[in-house]
Amino acid sequence: MQPSGEFDLIARHFRRPPRRAIVGIGDDCAVLQPSPGCRLAISTDMLVAGRHFFPDADPHWLGHKALAVNLSDLAACGARPLAFTLALALPQADDAWLAPFARGLFALADAHDCELIGGDTTRGPLNICITVMGEVPGPGQHGGALLRSGARPGDDLYVSGTLGDARLALDALQGRLSLPPEQLARARQRLDAPTPRVALGQALQGLASAAIDLSDGLLGDVQHLLDASGVGADVHADAALSLLAHGRQPGDAALPRPTLLACVLSGGDDYELAFTAPPSLRDAVQVAALRSATPVTRIGSIAARPGLQLLDAQGRVLTDRFPSFDHFA
Amino acid sequence: MQPSGEFDLIARHFRRPPRRAIVGIGDDCAVLQPSPGCRLAISTDMLVAGRHFFPDADPHWLGHKALAVNLSDLAACGARPLAFTLALALPQADDAWLAPFARGLFALADAHDCELIGGDTTRGPLNICITVMGEVPGPGQHGGALLRSGARPGDDLYVSGTLGDARLALDALQGRLSLPPEQLARARQRLDAPTPRVALGQALQGLASAAIDLSDGLLGDVQHLLDASGVGADVHADAALSLLAHGRQPGDAALPRPTLLACVLSGGDDYELAFTAPPSLRDAVQVAALRSATPVTRIGSIAARPGLQLLDAQGRVLTDRFPSFDHFA
Repeated sequence: MQPSGEFDLIARHFRRPPRRAIVGIGDDCAVLQPSPGCRLAISTDMLVAGRHFFPDADPHWLGHKALAVNLSDLAACGARPLAFTLALALPQADDAWLAPFARGLFALADAHDCELIGGDTTRGPLNICITVMGEVPGPGQHGGALLRSGARPGDDLYVSGTLGDARLALDALQGRLSLPPEQLARARQRLDAPTPRVALGQALQGLASAAIDLSDGLLGDVQHLLDASGVGADVHADAALSLLAHGRQPGDAALPRPTLLACVLSGGDDYELAFTAPPSLRDAVQVAALRSATPVTRIGSIAARPGLQLLDAQGRVLTDRFPSFDHFA
Repeated sequence: MQPSGEFDLIARHFRRPPRRAIVGIGDDCAVLQPSPGCRLAISTDMLVAGRHFFPDADPHWLGHKALAVNLSDLAACGARPLAFTLALALPQADDAWLAPFARGLFALADAHDCELIGGDTTRGPLNICITVMGEVPGPGQHGGALLRSGARPGDDLYVSGTLGDARLALDALQGRLSLPPEQLARARQRLDAPTPRVALGQALQGLASAAIDLSDGLLGDVQHLLDASGVGADVHADAALSLLAHGRQPGDAALPRPTLLACVLSGGDDYELAFTAPPSLRDAVQVAALRSATPVTRIGSIAARPGLQLLDAQGRVLTDRFPSFDHFA
């Protein structure tokens, strides 16, 4: 009997010789051995056409993004990427789509030495589900995984990189606002090809008291970190606004402040890290940022009272609500 | 900010305190530590409405089956289940669907001490993607994972349990054949609630030379094992037919032999194990079957020449083709 279409398809686009894995694609299970003393960090994300990406999205960048959002979860835990599985539902077996998808996926995977070890393909409405595995040092070294639950009153609150571009691009592509072509291209790159902050996450091992990745919007995701830690926070609106990539380039559109504030505070799809660290480690945090070539900005501090307060330049509490993106809203 | 709908939903139906996991649901990653000296076995399966199950399938049994097909992959590797992630796309956030789905899922998970450690939920066409993790002994103990690639000429070829009922049920439900109600109920239980052969897989550690789980049909799946091992096989049609559950109960429908042969040879959705072992281990294989309360049947043997030959009672080669189920056919 000849291998049938499904198996051909998998082999042609996704099968490569195992590197670190003991058993890779092609058996009932993959077999993986974490480094001695290390624990395994695991996360899964499902991307659905029309919900997480445009149905006609460039398959190359879709391959990139599907892995990037998973690597971003590893980054938030300070884990070193090891391997991932890919389950893919496709309306039809389409080489012209699969070839660039696989190229985009593997380009990012190779950049992080993260190996595809298994998967499943089936016919169905386009759906991409990746489960990623990384490793974190055991409890004896550097405190293990970064968790959401370690923030303590008095800690500084930081955010990596810049925020808001992904949401600006989405709003422009869906006709809710207008951007000059060059700005749209820059913003769209953040939407289509997010950069998981893997190096920063690892550099923050032993420094950050808590961390989370920003997928659904700054305020909503930071609230999850606060909830897990049983604390509150004061966030300075001006410091948050300074995270905007928008406005840094000559020729950027003039947009109203409420639009910009909404983009930076609850835009979503940023895939930056928010994290906390004691003020005594400010220099060490900046060294970690430099080592990982990832700028970080201090935007507030952790409070003992519950709740996230957004403060204006005069220290007054702003009361606008910026809800987090909810996949069932 | 209050937790929004998506997070509520996850918490209500799926969040339970971590047991073996160091970090469970609710952080960016779960954290897991395999037992000392053990390796991790990993598999992923995606189930799509209308393709792998009827859109109106009972959510309780769908929860069971989504995990069962993944545990079946662990069984084929001889792995002990540890943990799984669940990614779920749903047309709407529906308590009346999620509650029984979670009950069915956790009933099977608890029976195998397999812990839900992470997940993702989103709105979209119904799609269930589970990634399961188990552990296998390191190379020093019992030979590690069972693989597809270890079959050697002269080995016996075995199949666990019975075959064909799932396909009979599917054909009956889709109107291609007629079964008495009691037989349909029995057959349908095999379709809706397959039993992953986890205990048998572990009992075959150190005995079986190769193994695979039967999801797409006996002949097609055994062919994958043969391909991976670089060997062929002779399969006795009468021995294969003896694997049919059909016909064992009084009142079972009278069905034509070609229908029955097709069900047993290429029915699919059986989730039994096919495995090979040297003839010198026949007694030990039967002890493993007894220990795991899972009957096994010898249906043929491995040959050095390539190809799978189906033989009649007189040893003549049958030439009918029974293609494996292909999700893109």
